[in-house]
Amino acid sequence: MDNMPTLYDIICARPNVYRYLSPTPLFHYPALKKLVGTDIWIKHENHQPVGAFKVRGGLHLAASLTTEQKQGGLYTASTGNHGQSIGFAARAFGISATIAVPEGANPGKIAAMKGLGAEVIEHGKDFDTAREWITAVAHDRGGYFVGPTDDPLIHGVGTYGLEIIEKLPEVDVIIVPVGAGSGVCGTAIAAKTINPHVQVIGVQSAQAPAMQKSWQTATMQQAEMDTVAEGLATRIPFENTQRIMQKYLDDFILVDDSSIEQAVYLLLEHTHNLAEEAGAASLAAAIQIRDRLVHKKVVLVMSGGNIAPERLNSIMHEYGQ
Amino acid sequence: MDNMPTLYDIICARPNVYRYLSPTPLFHYPALKKLVGTDIWIKHENHQPVGAFKVRGGLHLAASLTTEQKQGGLYTASTGNHGQSIGFAARAFGISATIAVPEGANPGKIAAMKGLGAEVIEHGKDFDTAREWITAVAHDRGGYFVGPTDDPLIHGVGTYGLEIIEKLPEVDVIIVPVGAGSGVCGTAIAAKTINPHVQVIGVQSAQAPAMQKSWQTATMQQAEMDTVAEGLATRIPFENTQRIMQKYLDDFILVDDSSIEQAVYLLLEHTHNLAEEAGAASLAAAIQIRDRLVHKKVVLVMSGGNIAPERLNSIMHEYGQ
Repeated sequence: MDNMPTLYDIICARPNVYRYLSPTPLFHYPALKKLVGTDIWIKHENHQPVGAFKVRGGLHLAASLTTEQKQGGLYTASTGNHGQSIGFAARAFGISATIAVPEGANPGKIAAMKGLGAEVIEHGKDFDTAREWITAVAHDRGGYFVGPTDDPLIHGVGTYGLEIIEKLPEVDVIIVPVGAGSGVCGTAIAAKTINPHVQVIGVQSAQAPAMQKSWQTATMQQAEMDTVAEGLATRIPFENTQRIMQKYLDDFILVDDSSIEQAVYLLLEHTHNLAEEAGAASLAAAIQIRDRLVHKKVVLVMSGGNIAPERLNSIMHEYGQ
Repeated sequence: MDNMPTLYDIICARPNVYRYLSPTPLFHYPALKKLVGTDIWIKHENHQPVGAFKVRGGLHLAASLTTEQKQGGLYTASTGNHGQSIGFAARAFGISATIAVPEGANPGKIAAMKGLGAEVIEHGKDFDTAREWITAVAHDRGGYFVGPTDDPLIHGVGTYGLEIIEKLPEVDVIIVPVGAGSGVCGTAIAAKTINPHVQVIGVQSAQAPAMQKSWQTATMQQAEMDTVAEGLATRIPFENTQRIMQKYLDDFILVDDSSIEQAVYLLLEHTHNLAEEAGAASLAAAIQIRDRLVHKKVVLVMSGGNIAPERLNSIMHEYGQ
């Protein structure tokens, strides 16, 4: 278990994160108590400048590069939010960024990456295909490939976990959406190092369960991937986050895509926040396991808000009055 | 012009505001530059815990009350956001709150006020009718009536204006939605006292132009009120905010409700933020006067995000693909 990220790494990331970002709000919503049956707070990572938590990690990673690494430019693959994070960080540090996205990726997220000055290339049918391709491109060009779960990203995103535990030290349960796992790992390291009694629960879509199956069996399991939640759409699990999750995670549950979509609507109705599908998975999970949450203080991580308008339109049509 | 609120009043309000709230983000959106033709920042008052800027004023007002005034409880009228602000502040200080809302008020806002522990009473066909009624009720019961433009509210909400000028001192133009006028007055006092070259522009709906007509003619003018933007729905103008606006405001424009609705959609698409109609009026105004904004650094105040889901549904249906 050597070299696993620690609370100290997260503490060290803070100056790099807070040079560009402010802590996000943690708000209590009485209206959600009626839905879930216990006190609910939301950690608003959707209020980040690029609309998702990952920007914390990108900034810390970019700040940690050598001059030579910066000159080679950053290369990565993304379904959208990680790419926006790398684009934001690259712009902040004057580094070039080249981002591979799967074909048919969220057009709003692509436009946002381009708006930040990144070069965006569509390649492959899903995230993992795009990732394998851009890794080779980066190698050929002598660029710096940023893997979606590189340690500095975990250190950086862990700062939101620390914000939760500092703002609400009495929290009992934190529910975190899992894509590649950097968010849940950073949160769990921060929260459980400070208070081992906090439960940290991961949530993935039942239509993309690779990370959950791998955690449950403690082996690396690929799985079908057919979720509407691009932020949870992992087909091939990541070893370094799995290793951390084996050590720190209390539970890891699956929710159906239909519950996620309903949660997008419920969050819009009751909190007036736009959550993307992944960002709403934590509420879907809380509703599903509400019997286990009675009398507990529960924090739901709203990991991002970058939903495509046409997806929102379809959800409004389905769940709105 | 004696007794008009000053920058000093706003500075004095800060400790009361920041005891409960954090500064809200001011984000730059490259995607909005394409729409408006110049650099656009958004002041995210929709990120407040009750989803609108007014909570700053409510907290400062409650903090300024005597023990006797607190014991009598707070009484006010609201189309929603002011009521949530007073409910939030009353809860924070352990004071009772009784809020009159017009019949047919936004059910989400009513639920939120009740969730904060306020007593909510529907009365009258519009805001002004509800206000006249609850003023009498407060008098009968010995309670403290909070008018929507009471000076401490202007001092409190002015803290967001100060945040704008401190974060982006080079701002050229600030566009602010106007309902009763507390937001635009606080902003103008803060911004123009520090830098008289900043232009502060108010915006109201063409379907509720009472404040604009009054400002333009420097007389108190009632007007037809038939806007979808409840946050701009003022039929009877307010003298104290008009007096401040006469001194500080550079311009006051009207935008059509249809432009406001389109702006709600554009903000959702390009910033992934949910703006209520009033909160989107600043973007509608910027698009309308884009020829005047060339090469200027423009801040749009997104005053609130509490849109009713069925209203959003109808906007998505109209403007979404």
